[in-house]
Parts: sequence; structure tokens; C-alpha cells
Amino acid sequence: MSAPETVEPLDLRFSDAELADRRDRIQSFVRETVDAAGAERCVLGLSGGIDSTTVAHLTVDELGADALHGLVMPGAVSSDENMSDAERVAEDLGIEYDVVEIDPFVDQLADIYPDAADDELAVGNARARTRAVLNYFVANHEQGLVLGTGNRAEAMTGYYTKYGDQAVDCNPIGNLYKMQVRQLARDLGVPEDLVTKAPTAGLWADQTDEGELGVGYDVIDAVLAVHVEGGVPASATADHLGVDATVVETVRELYEASEHKRAMPPAP
Amino acid sequence: MSAPETVEPLDLRFSDAELADRRDRIQSFVRETVDAAGAERCVLGLSGGIDSTTVAHLTVDELGADALHGLVMPGAVSSDENMSDAERVAEDLGIEYDVVEIDPFVDQLADIYPDAADDELAVGNARARTRAVLNYFVANHEQGLVLGTGNRAEAMTGYYTKYGDQAVDCNPIGNLYKMQVRQLARDLGVPEDLVTKAPTAGLWADQTDEGELGVGYDVIDAVLAVHVEGGVPASATADHLGVDATVVETVRELYEASEHKRAMPPAP
Repeated sequence: MSAPETVEPLDLRFSDAELADRRDRIQSFVRETVDAAGAERCVLGLSGGIDSTTVAHLTVDELGADALHGLVMPGAVSSDENMSDAERVAEDLGIEYDVVEIDPFVDQLADIYPDAADDELAVGNARARTRAVLNYFVANHEQGLVLGTGNRAEAMTGYYTKYGDQAVDCNPIGNLYKMQVRQLARDLGVPEDLVTKAPTAGLWADQTDEGELGVGYDVIDAVLAVHVEGGVPASATADHLGVDATVVETVRELYEASEHKRAMPPAP
Repeated sequence: MSAPETVEPLDLRFSDAELADRRDRIQSFVRETVDAAGAERCVLGLSGGIDSTTVAHLTVDELGADALHGLVMPGAVSSDENMSDAERVAEDLGIEYDVVEIDPFVDQLADIYPDAADDELAVGNARARTRAVLNYFVANHEQGLVLGTGNRAEAMTGYYTKYGDQAVDCNPIGNLYKMQVRQLARDLGVPEDLVTKAPTAGLWADQTDEGELGVGYDVIDAVLAVHVEGGVPASATADHLGVDATVVETVRELYEASEHKRAMPPAP
């Protein structure tokens, strides 16, 4: 299987054999993590985006539909399209799922701190953190594990809410670049419209990841692999990938500014 | 300065010179962490217990009262005594503080999932996680850092809620054993009744840490230091400290079962 589009500036996709092997490893990881925790099942927030959809498919493929409980958690700025996509994923997979509105929680915060009610960052992050409280409430009650949907590009750029969508027990696709997630999603049979939909964190209105990050995921993937992980100097990376030096710098800055999100809280 | 009581089975307290040095290091750590993050101030949940009280004193001593915003967050099972102690700490230090009831949030969860409403673990953890959402809502709005109150004994036994009270930006007293926190608290002028009060996580009614853990903190501190950190075999630890072998085993099991709480979520 191969994706139809051209991938620029660097193709990070697996060969067919590599992809099969990676998929096996990820599915085994999910099973082993659940078993090691003595957990009964898994809980997963479904956004209608490719990451959560891919994790849902992987989990059901490995553990069966009964092992996964999906939470669809629309908020004031969630698009109807994404939420109906999320429900469609749950229906297609035949898993138990609930639709839980998060606005009542977030509105309460805004009532308590009206000065912060218009603070997009604070409110947006509170949405993600409220979803985590809900995931864990269900998981604690069902002796479940909360599955994460973070991928390698998000993890390294810090493009997630600390103790929000990052608040999970494991990250099955945490070591896949975004274009590798797309490739795996197609392999799992995720509908093409979900594979190609513009990614959004859904924290505020009209948000798209790539609009906010200022760089497309294909470029982020490539700069992370070559410069940040690979250690190729910034100027050589820009030359090699044919991207502007400021783009390399932007990705580097996202990586450095988010170090605190990838480590346990420090103590002296 | 030295504490009046006898400490058994192993005295882990600092000498006066060591204590002064440790206090300096912790306060410098708080300043440097705030500066490095470009933060404006700190946010801290106040429980009326010794850990949060000690962190509040340390922070005000280093950065001044204006730099700290306290949140007192009573819930259904919080004792009136602890909440009034928390307010007293804020008043004594002259910091800004709010009293925010968390029951409306937790009750909403229980309304959505009535089957889980009587699940003490799920509800108790949801209390801790709701407090984290509030801390971060205020911190995000004020460009603040959320200070943690975890100590070394809690960290190593996993005696806290993952993504609840553990959801912080740094842990100033994270490397102090409980008896060292008590010693530091006295040095900072924390009122003696708060130093000697029975610690409680406040997640369910009549909870005390030592009742739930089944072992006193002085023993936990000693077993952690000698056996878990120090690597002295379990039987030799029991002999050396004069405690029962089952106690060493209990502490060891707490440590092992909580490894997932001390690491970032794994990915394959």
C-alpha cells in the first residue's frame, strides 16, 4: 500500500514490510501495556481527527471492540463535522461510546474567573484538561487505561496541552511522524476523508494545527527528523530540504520551548 | 534548629548548616524556574497541610507575597479545619487567594456517569484533577507557573493522583522526605499545629495518608532511603531499622506499582 500524493520535502514513509512490522509492534505494545497494568479495557477521546481515529482502529484490531470505550467530547468551538466524524468512527468500529458536552465545565470556570473568560489560551487549554478529567473518570471507574493520541511531530513541537490531551497512560503512535500516521491510517482502513482532513486541536474556533504552527506537517516532520533528531545543522538542513532557514528555526524554537512538556516536573 | 520529637527508626533530618543550604537551593530553584519560563508569578493550591504550606512560605520568602496566588479548593469531603487552615496560611503570608468550591464540577461528572458516582477512587481522583484544571486556568491567564507540593515520600510511593495534584510545573520540595519537610517547615516559621497535623490527601472522607498507606511516614521515609533508594536488601533493611519485613515489602510494592506515575507516558 502506498499513499497517492507526493511527499515533500522528505519522504518519511515506511516500506510495506516496515509498515507491517511497525503496526505489529504498536498493537503488541497496546496489548502488553493493558496487560501489565491489569486493566480491563481502554478509554479514548475521539475527536474525528486522524490521530484518535488511528489509535481507535489499532486498539480494536488488537483487542476487539469490547475493549475500547470512546468519549466524544464536543465543546463550543468543536466543528459539527469533526464530532459527527468522531461518532462515525465509533459506529464503524462498533465500540461503546458516549457524547459528553464539555461546555458546562468550562463555563463554570469562566463564571468563577470572568476576567479569564475571553482568554483563548486559558479557555482552550481548560477544554483539553476537562477532557482529560472525563477520560480518567471513566477509566478509573472501569479499571481502564487512557490511550493517548499524540504523534511524534506533536510531541516534539509541544503542540498539545500539558496535562490535557497529554494526560494519558500510553501513546501508541507517539513515535510516528505525522505522515507515518497517515500511512498507517490508510493501512488500517481509516476512511480517506479522515486521513486527508486538516488536523485541528479543536481548542478554539477555526483552529488548524498547520495554521497555528505556521508550517505544514510534512515540513515539520522533515525538519524534526533531519535537524532536531538527526543533528544536521540548521543551515545544512535548510539546504538539504530546500526550505527556508527561518522555517528550520521556527521548528527548532517550538522544540526548545516545549522541553518542559516532555519531562516530569523538576525538583531541586 | 531541631525538632523536639524523637524520630524512629532512622533520623533523616539535616544539620542546621545542611538545612540552611537546602533551603537556599530550593528557593533559588523556584526563582530560576520562574525566570526561565518567563513567568509572572506562581499559582499554588493550598490544602492547609504541611506540604502546600511549606511551599507557600518558601515562595513568599524568595519572591514576595505578590508573586503567589493561592487557591483554596474545598470539596465535599474537605474538613472545615483544613480549609480554614489553608485560608489562615494565605492570610498570614498576605498573598492573594481565592476559595473555589470543586463540588459543582465533580457533581457534574457524577450526573453524567451516575454509575460512577459512588466510586470513591474515581470521584476522589476527579477531585484532585479538577483542582489541577483550576490551578492551570488561573496560571494560564496570569502567565504563572503551577507549583507542586509533592515530597519525596509521596513521589516514590505514588501517593498522589496522576494528572491531579501531580499536574504541576515544578516540585520545590520534591526531593525532601516527609520528616525533612517538617524540619524545613519549622525553620520557615510554619505554625506548629500545621507541622504536626495528620497528613491527608483529602480525596475522600476521613482519609489520612498514614491510615491509607498502612505505615507511618517516618517508617516510609526510612525504608525508602535505606532499601528502595539505598539498595540495602529487604531483610537487612528490616533488621537494620527494626521494622517488620512485611512493612519493607509494603513500601517496596507501593514503589513498584507507581512506576508509571514517575515517567512520561510510554510509546512503542
